[in-house]
Amino acid sequence: MNPFAPSLHRSVSALGEENLITAIRRWLGPVSPKAPFGIGDDCAVLPGSRGRQLITVDPVIFGEHFDATVPPGAVGAKLLKRNLSDLAAMGGRPQAAVVALALDPRTSTRWLEGFYRGLARVARRYHVPVVGGDIAQSKHALVASLTLLGQATGPRVVTRTGARMGDWIYVTGRLGGSLPSSHHWKFTPRLAEGAWLARRREVRAMMDVSDGLAKDLHALTPTGATPAISAAALPCRRGADVRAALTDGEDYELVFAVSAGADRDALARAWRRRFPRTRLSGIGRFVQAGRLPAEALNLDDYRGFEHLR
Amino acid sequence: MNPFAPSLHRSVSALGEENLITAIRRWLGPVSPKAPFGIGDDCAVLPGSRGRQLITVDPVIFGEHFDATVPPGAVGAKLLKRNLSDLAAMGGRPQAAVVALALDPRTSTRWLEGFYRGLARVARRYHVPVVGGDIAQSKHALVASLTLLGQATGPRVVTRTGARMGDWIYVTGRLGGSLPSSHHWKFTPRLAEGAWLARRREVRAMMDVSDGLAKDLHALTPTGATPAISAAALPCRRGADVRAALTDGEDYELVFAVSAGADRDALARAWRRRFPRTRLSGIGRFVQAGRLPAEALNLDDYRGFEHLR
Repeated sequence: MNPFAPSLHRSVSALGEENLITAIRRWLGPVSPKAPFGIGDDCAVLPGSRGRQLITVDPVIFGEHFDATVPPGAVGAKLLKRNLSDLAAMGGRPQAAVVALALDPRTSTRWLEGFYRGLARVARRYHVPVVGGDIAQSKHALVASLTLLGQATGPRVVTRTGARMGDWIYVTGRLGGSLPSSHHWKFTPRLAEGAWLARRREVRAMMDVSDGLAKDLHALTPTGATPAISAAALPCRRGADVRAALTDGEDYELVFAVSAGADRDALARAWRRRFPRTRLSGIGRFVQAGRLPAEALNLDDYRGFEHLR
Repeated sequence: MNPFAPSLHRSVSALGEENLITAIRRWLGPVSPKAPFGIGDDCAVLPGSRGRQLITVDPVIFGEHFDATVPPGAVGAKLLKRNLSDLAAMGGRPQAAVVALALDPRTSTRWLEGFYRGLARVARRYHVPVVGGDIAQSKHALVASLTLLGQATGPRVVTRTGARMGDWIYVTGRLGGSLPSSHHWKFTPRLAEGAWLARRREVRAMMDVSDGLAKDLHALTPTGATPAISAAALPCRRGADVRAALTDGEDYELVFAVSAGADRDALARAWRRRFPRTRLSGIGRFVQAGRLPAEALNLDDYRGFEHLR
């Protein structure tokens, strides 16, 4: 059977990413455990690890996540940092990585050297042994997938579920304009911030922003609620407007929910002491669905990054 | 920088797989631990696991590991079984898997359903939860990489190093003709056999045969030795000759070294009791390099599968 559909309407592109993931879970059936022990969070919590071991996988693909303008070292660095960002989102620290390469036999040795040296720089900085990998041929392609194992840093890992009606919504750093500013490969994964937040009891749910806040926030939103975000509070990157901040993607920042009754001033003060150089923004809260205040953004008007176009 | 070299002699194809792996370890530098804790064995032993947790990654790629003649369910099954074979080679049992897909947006939904249902069948049979994954777009490609975590089943894992001069060489099942016989996707990973062998003290080193015995045996051969293999003892698959058995690859059988002083009759009897339907063949032994008996095969005349052509 030919894996490529004769017409687009029978393809994964027509199905779309979200429906495809739902379908995959159905096809897998009983071997697909519920999140956080299966598909659906930034990392999966491994069975038999007493909730303490995490795993995630993310690729970089030529023509998708980088092109010839990005230095090879930045591509290797980005590959590991993307995965570190997923680990940060659950409050984990890295344990080990493996890299699977599928590459055209014409791939330049010099390019590959740059790629691995860039990867190694980040691996040294965050203490990630690269323990294995695989190299295989794939004509006209260059795909590098990295699987990252990690461990909880504190007494718990933070998942995407747990936010409640009325909770405040916070985001680290700035959003939007990732591509023109080269932030998409220059970013710093928020490992220290994620580990710190996982120890704060008022933080109820967390994830990283990779496909644009407007799209990603759905996963954090409790049933029956809608996020009421203030445009004025959005920390837009220089040159990025509200639409860019909500939809560009590749921000690699953390978005998290803080319980309604928390001492928000104490949180802000503690944050500034610990992370004086990283911005923290309260951008809104979860309100009853259908009761969006007039001044709040309607996120349905914004769409995040769609992986299968 | 363009990742594809303007001329082939600066490409990974010209460098070749073995030199490339050596180069990668050099580029990674201190973040690349020594095997079995790093690159170089069937699986890597994870740091901080007291030698008990294993990780491996292997892909299936359209045009390389399968084509339109292989049913999609068999492709999904093969992806997991290839990795289970690596785990078997160290005496491990599976713990969890993640799957990274890079696919052309034209990929057929029906094909993908078959792929995942085939993967799920094998996952159910061997109790492997599929805990996560990633889907990304890659034009004109279809690459599925599976990372498998496993655990030691007994008191030790068996690595590729440990064979000594004079040790006997054994192989499970039959070799050669994997492609014409469809063995390359119909095979059964030798998990039970690998776990059993890891508990036998006379088994000193083990690996799986995936690139052809002639190539793979190098990794098992102790320094200063050469494998003296008897053509008559080679368990050729029906329709496969000695050359096919030595070079075809994709056998997914186990090859292992048994200490020179072992009671080989006792081993053979115990094997037949436990695995009456799986052939076990003593095919030769490790002798002094340069002292190959006249009747032994010269493996330098045979080449196994080269991944970057």
